[in-house]
Amino acid sequence: MNDHHKTLTVFQIAEHVGGEVSGDPEMPISGAAAVEHAGKETITFADRPAILKKLSDCKAGAVVVPETFDSPCAATMIRCRHPRLAFAKIMALFYPRKRSISGISPTASIGRHFEGGEEVIVGAHAFIGDSVTLGNRVIIHPGVYIGDSVTIGDDTEIFPNAVVMDQCIIGKRVVIHPGSVIGSDGFGFTPDGTRHHKIPQTGIVEIEDDVEIGAGNTIDRATFGRTLVGEGVKTDNMVHIAHNVSIGAHSIIVAQVGIAGSASIGSHVTIAGQAGIGGHLKIGDGAVIGPQAGVARTIAPGRVVSGTPEMDHRLWLRVQRVVPQLPELKKRLFELEKQLRILQQKPGDQNDSEADE
Amino acid sequence: MNDHHKTLTVFQIAEHVGGEVSGDPEMPISGAAAVEHAGKETITFADRPAILKKLSDCKAGAVVVPETFDSPCAATMIRCRHPRLAFAKIMALFYPRKRSISGISPTASIGRHFEGGEEVIVGAHAFIGDSVTLGNRVIIHPGVYIGDSVTIGDDTEIFPNAVVMDQCIIGKRVVIHPGSVIGSDGFGFTPDGTRHHKIPQTGIVEIEDDVEIGAGNTIDRATFGRTLVGEGVKTDNMVHIAHNVSIGAHSIIVAQVGIAGSASIGSHVTIAGQAGIGGHLKIGDGAVIGPQAGVARTIAPGRVVSGTPEMDHRLWLRVQRVVPQLPELKKRLFELEKQLRILQQKPGDQNDSEADE
Amino acid sequence: MNDHHKTLTVFQIAEHVGGEVSGDPEMPISGAAAVEHAGKETITFADRPAILKKLSDCKAGAVVVPETFDSPCAATMIRCRHPRLAFAKIMALFYPRKRSISGISPTASIGRHFEGGEEVIVGAHAFIGDSVTLGNRVIIHPGVYIGDSVTIGDDTEIFPNAVVMDQCIIGKRVVIHPGSVIGSDGFGFTPDGTRHHKIPQTGIVEIEDDVEIGAGNTIDRATFGRTLVGEGVKTDNMVHIAHNVSIGAHSIIVAQVGIAGSASIGSHVTIAGQAGIGGHLKIGDGAVIGPQAGVARTIAPGRVVSGTPEMDHRLWLRVQRVVPQLPELKKRLFELEKQLRILQQKPGDQNDSEADE
Repeated sequence: MNDHHKTLTVFQIAEHVGGEVSGDPEMPISGAAAVEHAGKETITFADRPAILKKLSDCKAGAVVVPETFDSPCAATMIRCRHPRLAFAKIMALFYPRKRSISGISPTASIGRHFEGGEEVIVGAHAFIGDSVTLGNRVIIHPGVYIGDSVTIGDDTEIFPNAVVMDQCIIGKRVVIHPGSVIGSDGFGFTPDGTRHHKIPQTGIVEIEDDVEIGAGNTIDRATFGRTLVGEGVKTDNMVHIAHNVSIGAHSIIVAQVGIAGSASIGSHVTIAGQAGIGGHLKIGDGAVIGPQAGVARTIAPGRVVSGTPEMDHRLWLRVQRVVPQLPELKKRLFELEKQLRILQQKPGDQNDSEADE
Repeated sequence: MNDHHKTLTVFQIAEHVGGEVSGDPEMPISGAAAVEHAGKETITFADRPAILKKLSDCKAGAVVVPETFDSPCAATMIRCRHPRLAFAKIMALFYPRKRSISGISPTASIGRHFEGGEEVIVGAHAFIGDSVTLGNRVIIHPGVYIGDSVTIGDDTEIFPNAVVMDQCIIGKRVVIHPGSVIGSDGFGFTPDGTRHHKIPQTGIVEIEDDVEIGAGNTIDRATFGRTLVGEGVKTDNMVHIAHNVSIGAHSIIVAQVGIAGSASIGSHVTIAGQAGIGGHLKIGDGAVIGPQAGVARTIAPGRVVSGTPEMDHRLWLRVQRVVPQLPELKKRLFELEKQLRILQQKPGDQNDSEADE
Repeated sequence: MNDHHKTLTVFQIAEHVGGEVSGDPEMPISGAAAVEHAGKETITFADRPAILKKLSDCKAGAVVVPETFDSPCAATMIRCRHPRLAFAKIMALFYPRKRSISGISPTASIGRHFEGGEEVIVGAHAFIGDSVTLGNRVIIHPGVYIGDSVTIGDDTEIFPNAVVMDQCIIGKRVVIHPGSVIGSDGFGFTPDGTRHHKIPQTGIVEIEDDVEIGAGNTIDRATFGRTLVGEGVKTDNMVHIAHNVSIGAHSIIVAQVGIAGSASIGSHVTIAGQAGIGGHLKIGDGAVIGPQAGVARTIAPGRVVSGTPEMDHRLWLRVQRVVPQLPELKKRLFELEKQLRILQQKPGDQNDSEADE
């Protein structure tokens, strides 16, 4: 995605992101880069004090900075309220995702009662089951499997070799990265004392608008009803979401997190990498769960917790400092016991050292 | 899987599961649902005291209850020994898995010396290597890869985009969910001091009858011999099973568990989510390993362990309560040391507060 | 991979691995096996004292032993400097990976401007985008997706249903196991206070020569520049490598490890199973990270660390012994406090037991 041929003036870029130019508005820009790699015709951005301080050396042609930034800078500046967000828009301008596939491939397998919107793309060797509905501009990449009766909203893109099983509902502007599985059976079995019998998983997965699912996720269908991934949720790679889980709008789930069955995650929650959330728990809106945490209790809205068992993050930081001291603390405890025993001995009763273990 | 058109009487359902009707045996039932969503023509089930207590309000047409349940209930009841198991059978009755694919797709790639049983289904763009044998009613979904000389038993179903590498042996009534990989090379390398050389992985994976493998699993082939997944084992999503592991019959492996090379897991073992089992260990029959546990020692049959290092589950519960108290306990220990030093001073020796750190 | 028909003399084998024969050089050998399963026409190896001691009973036709081994042995011996490495070479001799596919399948989808070297294999239903370059003897297995402008070096093999996204660069003699995803978007979003906006991921993944990537890995492309997997690195299954990570030459990454964005891993590093490495950290050359460790700080070269927080491995072993004792230690601390209070009471002041606790 590195080859492109677009050149824009700083003024044009500032217009696009709603920023204010300070310096040469006619400066030509043909690419965007991180601050350490930015060259003459490149735009970069800075929003942290440490980086803002170094801008006097900056070799970039232009730099996006916060509205309040007023130090001297070698480069032309575009002042923006959200420099990082403005820069994301600029990157999308210079590096639009290119696609060499178009239309419905003759090697795709399309089921009966197919309804496709305008400009739908279905790649080579993709499989579309019966009664599937695809909105406008949906892109199904090569090797993707879409089961029967799946519905997919406008502008959604499903990357190679991903799988969406029967009946699932995918919203608009959703992105599903390669190899992810949506709608596999939930892990439901019931024992008879000797063996485990499968509980049919009759529900679906529903993914709302503007969700992005990373690569290699597995999101299981509900036993009854639906597993829900709410509007604007973003999941990183290898996230596991079990049956009947519900994730509220705009939550962030980092790589390798596992969420057990029927857990209810609020909106604007952040769950950091490799954390595990127990079944049937509620995680309140805006809560933050630390990396590798093991959450076994309901978490109130807005709490920031870490560790196993999960505890307030600040407490956890203090606990983390004590853990490596445990062998030393144990030694000091034993020494205290010894000293105390000596004190407890009657004065003059000096000859019972055998009693000291 | 939610659309269906079957209607049965409560009597017919009770016959099917071997239960006893109390109420109207002619009541028509056309679906099954969780107790909170069950309506007039729906059957539900209850086996926990908390739910059984609320059955007087139940809006379901019928409810499956334990044999011993004798309280009044608004709905017609079917009394069963194992209500949950009976209900699983009822769900399968109302929501049989539907398949729109049949026969061998003309777009599937079938190797030489193929032997397929009766009513075999091979979906679009599936790949079947040379010398593959499929039993009766085997279903290979679209996009699945089956390597050379693989043998698959009757009634096994392999979901989209899963991969079974050469020579592996899959039993009867096995289910492999989407995207899982069976028979990838084990992680075997040997260093020469400078770089790592591959140890060829010449063995296979054998999966016995009635196993269910979740989505996104990776089960590696043995260096020599076989990696074995025993009869009736159920794995959740994203389980990693390394080379030469052996898992005994009817064990349950929850999501994101990793089992290192040559570990030997007994039968009827449960390993909870995100736990890790070290290489070459033995986990005894019936043992239970807690979530996120890190097991580095052999576990005796029937033990219930949790934590890292793994310890008896009850001890671990107590340890979990102490962990968040560590900063406080450390403070109290230091205070004790201080108090003791004061006591150790000779009586009348009051002016040495500098010694108290 | 167990059927083969090759027979070699011990002398021929010794020549191949540069070892010295002791016993019958004309002994015919037709396979290799682990010491406990080795039979008359089989070669095995031994390099650990425990196994070397038992070689007098060994039923193998031949055995590879260390140069310095001089005890009696029932079998003909080949003495080698690196017995395990020599044995890996012998296994490759007897069990070469067989391939039933050859040439470019008529069902593969090949894009424009394709450049393929000599003896390239592209399997059924594979997808090759535009402007792809494959070196000599590259093998693309069935169902693999190769995006636009990907370059792959000589002798690289990509197993079924793996995905390599646009622009990525794959070196020579690389192996990518089934279902792995190379070059998916990094997890980059920026919030505006209400929702998360995607930061375009404009970089690539570069995988250098002699790398082996396990099954079900996800390796994300860089935001800018490249995510780098250095020469000779080996990853086990389900490893997650985030955007802009760099892994130095010959490092070993065990199953289910997660490496967060922009982390820089040195060369000859070992990261054990299920460990997590935080973003932007440096792990020095030759460092060893223990299983399930949570690394949140930079690690100096050569350090061996374990646990969460990570600490010196030896300290961690001691901490691990104390953890299960915590409830007992807490009790002893409380008892000490009680005893101390008693001691602190003035002599003769015996009747204030209410004050205790």
